[in-house]
Amino acid sequence: MFNTNTFQGLLMKLQHYWSSQGCTIIQSIDTEVGAATSHPMTCLWALGPEPISLAYIQASRRPTDGRYGNNPNRLQHYYQFQVTLKPSPINIQDMYLQSLKYLNIDLTIHDIRFVEDDWENPTLGAWGLGWEIWLDGMEITQLTYFQQIAGIDCRPVTGEITYGLERLAMYIQGVDNIYDLVWSNGPQGKITYGDLFYENEIQQSAYNFQYADTSFLLYCFDHYEKEINKLLKLNNPLIFPAYEHILKATHMFNILDARKAISVTERQNYITRIRTLTKSIGQAYYNYRNIIGFPRYNELNNNTSYDKKNIPNGIGDRRVTT
Amino acid sequence: MFNTNTFQGLLMKLQHYWSSQGCTIIQSIDTEVGAATSHPMTCLWALGPEPISLAYIQASRRPTDGRYGNNPNRLQHYYQFQVTLKPSPINIQDMYLQSLKYLNIDLTIHDIRFVEDDWENPTLGAWGLGWEIWLDGMEITQLTYFQQIAGIDCRPVTGEITYGLERLAMYIQGVDNIYDLVWSNGPQGKITYGDLFYENEIQQSAYNFQYADTSFLLYCFDHYEKEINKLLKLNNPLIFPAYEHILKATHMFNILDARKAISVTERQNYITRIRTLTKSIGQAYYNYRNIIGFPRYNELNNNTSYDKKNIPNGIGDRRVTT
Repeated sequence: MFNTNTFQGLLMKLQHYWSSQGCTIIQSIDTEVGAATSHPMTCLWALGPEPISLAYIQASRRPTDGRYGNNPNRLQHYYQFQVTLKPSPINIQDMYLQSLKYLNIDLTIHDIRFVEDDWENPTLGAWGLGWEIWLDGMEITQLTYFQQIAGIDCRPVTGEITYGLERLAMYIQGVDNIYDLVWSNGPQGKITYGDLFYENEIQQSAYNFQYADTSFLLYCFDHYEKEINKLLKLNNPLIFPAYEHILKATHMFNILDARKAISVTERQNYITRIRTLTKSIGQAYYNYRNIIGFPRYNELNNNTSYDKKNIPNGIGDRRVTT
Repeated sequence: MFNTNTFQGLLMKLQHYWSSQGCTIIQSIDTEVGAATSHPMTCLWALGPEPISLAYIQASRRPTDGRYGNNPNRLQHYYQFQVTLKPSPINIQDMYLQSLKYLNIDLTIHDIRFVEDDWENPTLGAWGLGWEIWLDGMEITQLTYFQQIAGIDCRPVTGEITYGLERLAMYIQGVDNIYDLVWSNGPQGKITYGDLFYENEIQQSAYNFQYADTSFLLYCFDHYEKEINKLLKLNNPLIFPAYEHILKATHMFNILDARKAISVTERQNYITRIRTLTKSIGQAYYNYRNIIGFPRYNELNNNTSYDKKNIPNGIGDRRVTT
């Protein structure tokens, strides 16, 4: 049904496979993140006992990885396919291997290795036991068991599988330049990764390395920090908005890093500030969910004392035109 | 293969259908937008002669539409399914009707109407001939022929189809509260739209209506305006970064609007500023693409004078660790 020799076919097949394994297929977070792990439904939802298994495609932005379209393997904007399994099933490795089979990769003739590579994310206050997965010597996936997120023990442990989509697609398609990847192949001819993203890579690289306004980015970082602390101090802490602000602060930091606007000593200081904020948000999320008993929507909705808390008189009924 | 009685199945079927109609299935833009039309591959790429037909799911944020999770039909964050056909095919209406059939909607027993509703988007400097499409009296889709974007005539005309996904899903599933929509139904039981988004709606509504820092938003708006003008004045204008800044400025404006921080007279002034900037960006994009002959990636890549323009010595080779 789907053609794995196109990038879009690969995306569709992975969604179909993980849906058939019981994952809910969600959509990416619509703000800039460096990795799929930062999606709130992975990072925050890994906290607490509720089972929830998800899969999604996430655009990842890493400003320092920009190469003005000149590097065949590296870009500042690319995609990850993320699988978040909570609780982590015993057969997670086999589930992963079956996904490769489903992509028509013959496991009997290729060398698949799990190379131990424990994971630590200093800005998320997170770590886990992990493996790189190599296909004929090339890393195509990371598999991680979350032990802690935001400094909180994960119970149960969430299993995370992150596919490097472009690399996997380059392998399947047998091309050695990312921009030559065939994204789709229909009546309008082959549309390549380069058709979609080459000009964008050149321009975003120039912006991130040369033109982004560093004093504005520094100002925003400070503001987001204040805003997060304000939102967490409310009687009903606004955790999801606070969490989006930490994503924005992290993105500002990443651009500042590309602009070389942060010295080595300042760098550690910024990372510490991000981690401290992320821990505060994670703990506020866990505490609040713990107090109300980790409900799902239906349980929450039937609790009539809950859903009116934040609502000032009148706003619920206000009509607006858009 | 896909279950249209789940939200995720509906998304998969629409992607599959439009892929079979020759569309390239792309991913959403990873920054906040009010509508799928704002995706740069729709809004900018509608300018110029190159054929390109796309389909994608886009999260849309409309802060003033937040209702603290209390309104069964209205939220500040929801999804659109967007089809952008360039050039617009003669049988676009029939292609659309066939998509409903593919979703198991029996056209012989339901009342489908095309209700004329020409489109104008003042912030995009855009307008087109358009129709609302009603299913048994309820609007489920908009169909538009772009006549102008950013004040520039579209040649050829792009046809745009935008499905209101939640409404369509509510109709198919026969539920009258958006939060009761079944998103997925697997071994972890039914996961509803409410499970995924109810708490987020409450908290984002509170943030947008009560707590967002209006002086910061105003400051950002002014900054983005300056930044766009700076990026467009460069010898090699950075159009895609400039375009993302207009999306950010528009999102700031939308939150300010929800905060009632903008008076009626100021409101028009802000909309004019956004339109002026969007027109500048659209014209810079069109002019630059016109000068280089509207190339695709391969043509561009083979033009050796092009792709080094923005690259200062050394940066292309710089290795960074991430």
